[in-house]
Amino acid sequence: MTSLTLALDVMGGDKGPHITIPAAIHAVQEDPSLHLILCGDENTISAILANHEQLNNSQLSIEPASQTVEMCDKPAHAIRFKKDSSMRKAIDLVASNKAQACVSAGNTGALFAIAHFVLKTIPGVDRPALISSLPTHDSTKHVFMLDLGANVFCDSHILYQFGVMGSVMAETVDGVKKPRVALLNMGEEEIKGSDNIKQAAVQLAANDKINYIGFVEGNDIFANKADVIVCDGFVGNVALKTCEGVARLVYQKLKNHFSNSFSGKIIGKLLTPTIKKLFKILNPDQYNGASLIGLRGIVVKSHGNANEIAFYSAILEAIKEVERQVPIKIKAKLE
Amino acid sequence: MTSLTLALDVMGGDKGPHITIPAAIHAVQEDPSLHLILCGDENTISAILANHEQLNNSQLSIEPASQTVEMCDKPAHAIRFKKDSSMRKAIDLVASNKAQACVSAGNTGALFAIAHFVLKTIPGVDRPALISSLPTHDSTKHVFMLDLGANVFCDSHILYQFGVMGSVMAETVDGVKKPRVALLNMGEEEIKGSDNIKQAAVQLAANDKINYIGFVEGNDIFANKADVIVCDGFVGNVALKTCEGVARLVYQKLKNHFSNSFSGKIIGKLLTPTIKKLFKILNPDQYNGASLIGLRGIVVKSHGNANEIAFYSAILEAIKEVERQVPIKIKAKLE
Repeated sequence: MTSLTLALDVMGGDKGPHITIPAAIHAVQEDPSLHLILCGDENTISAILANHEQLNNSQLSIEPASQTVEMCDKPAHAIRFKKDSSMRKAIDLVASNKAQACVSAGNTGALFAIAHFVLKTIPGVDRPALISSLPTHDSTKHVFMLDLGANVFCDSHILYQFGVMGSVMAETVDGVKKPRVALLNMGEEEIKGSDNIKQAAVQLAANDKINYIGFVEGNDIFANKADVIVCDGFVGNVALKTCEGVARLVYQKLKNHFSNSFSGKIIGKLLTPTIKKLFKILNPDQYNGASLIGLRGIVVKSHGNANEIAFYSAILEAIKEVERQVPIKIKAKLE
Repeated sequence: MTSLTLALDVMGGDKGPHITIPAAIHAVQEDPSLHLILCGDENTISAILANHEQLNNSQLSIEPASQTVEMCDKPAHAIRFKKDSSMRKAIDLVASNKAQACVSAGNTGALFAIAHFVLKTIPGVDRPALISSLPTHDSTKHVFMLDLGANVFCDSHILYQFGVMGSVMAETVDGVKKPRVALLNMGEEEIKGSDNIKQAAVQLAANDKINYIGFVEGNDIFANKADVIVCDGFVGNVALKTCEGVARLVYQKLKNHFSNSFSGKIIGKLLTPTIKKLFKILNPDQYNGASLIGLRGIVVKSHGNANEIAFYSAILEAIKEVERQVPIKIKAKLE
């Protein structure tokens, strides 16, 4: 008997089934109560499963899909013409309650559009958002940031809703009491930023169920000043990817520094695990995945460039959100 | 005889004259052809100069100003009611050709507004932009990024102008031939991003004097993919400050790591100069200052939290821009 079923878009992401299927195998081996439905090309999946001697694993089943959503597919095109894609099938399984959540490393725009179209939003939510957790100076705490790229432009009411959803996420997934919710802005002063942000600030401050603490700036993201940071998808995407870019730069500069001398090479070798760990911390998106919240179902987005460990982490994230019943709690908070 | 005169807003920034005046003294000591006009409270400036035995230094003169623009002053308020401020006096000296450039560590919004109001833009430029250079993986190259916070919202034509101005900056200040100009976006695909960005892309691609290379993402900023990266001020400000935040996080995580063990402490001590250097590279804004370009005069903005070295670097940046005649070259490119 299995108690939890997830649908995986195994064809999505830069590396597709060669990393998603091994991650799935790893997940079911670690959790005997887990059942995974592998959506994608039947022959490809069977061949990889056979290679891993997992063809008869009852925790894994195949949902055949003849199409794949490509990275360059426009969202509207994916909705209309990719109805038999692995991504669509995975989301359909959530909509029909055959799976409690789905995971994809595919085209973010298409995933957002299909999930929005098929699953619909929770009453009171206008737009779903992409949310992920980032590290802070306090290694026991992290900060949820949304939207990370699902919505290019967000009006004040949408930013307000993101604040509410982020607060629920921090409370239910992380157990934070009265999560500190902040808006990302160009300055901490009330006069700074766009009218949208100023109006969202007024709306968040007026909701006594939300612990709204004001504006924070880019350099505050990691400073443990807030538990939830709200911004539009464009800004969030740039901030997250800038973080990834800086991490790569640091990694490369440290490596270069150590390779310049013999003693440096020795210290560098000693430091490699630390630097790798640091690099991982600074790439939360790549390593933990992000979630689409505000939908009547759970959709976890793994990085397009995800490796096996990253896709496995995204599966774990989906399990966590199912257990915490995030959509139901968002609905309750918005009512 | 002095060949170059700069006006300094010595009262601006978190630390004010206690760091700006020592930086000024250092600058004139290094460059006997430099003349600096110190704008601010006469008594305060005289006292600090006397303390440094520089009261009779003919390379330093005082322009008395009875007011200071505070960090919380709204730009419009600063224009109307702070006409005798150190910031305004420094900009006025540029307008009247008594100084060839000015430097301030004060309120960015007010500096932008006063400079825009007093100096006016170059013909063909609608809005000035804040520009700075950031490090890349190739330590011999950096990338100019604009706007970094002067303009919250920018339409496509303003983004286009920023591309042209950035290209001139990279060409004249850094000597880059055919600078690669890119627009910061949420994805590299043409379908991504706002209409403004898509339209700016069309305009930049249509100008055969500009080497427009397409969209880049946040993680590409440091990847030496472009010499100039264009975005609106909100996004640029968040990206720059996120970079600063990540740098602090890395610094703290490395420090924590090394302080956990005795051998770690020794390695940590050996590494301190490297880590500090890295931190400095990752805080370009804090260490090099940014420039307001598109104006009929040169205005360099030092970080609000600048120390003496940072303010000194901003003075050097101003000298460089005077020598390269950046405003004249922008005008020529836009004609």
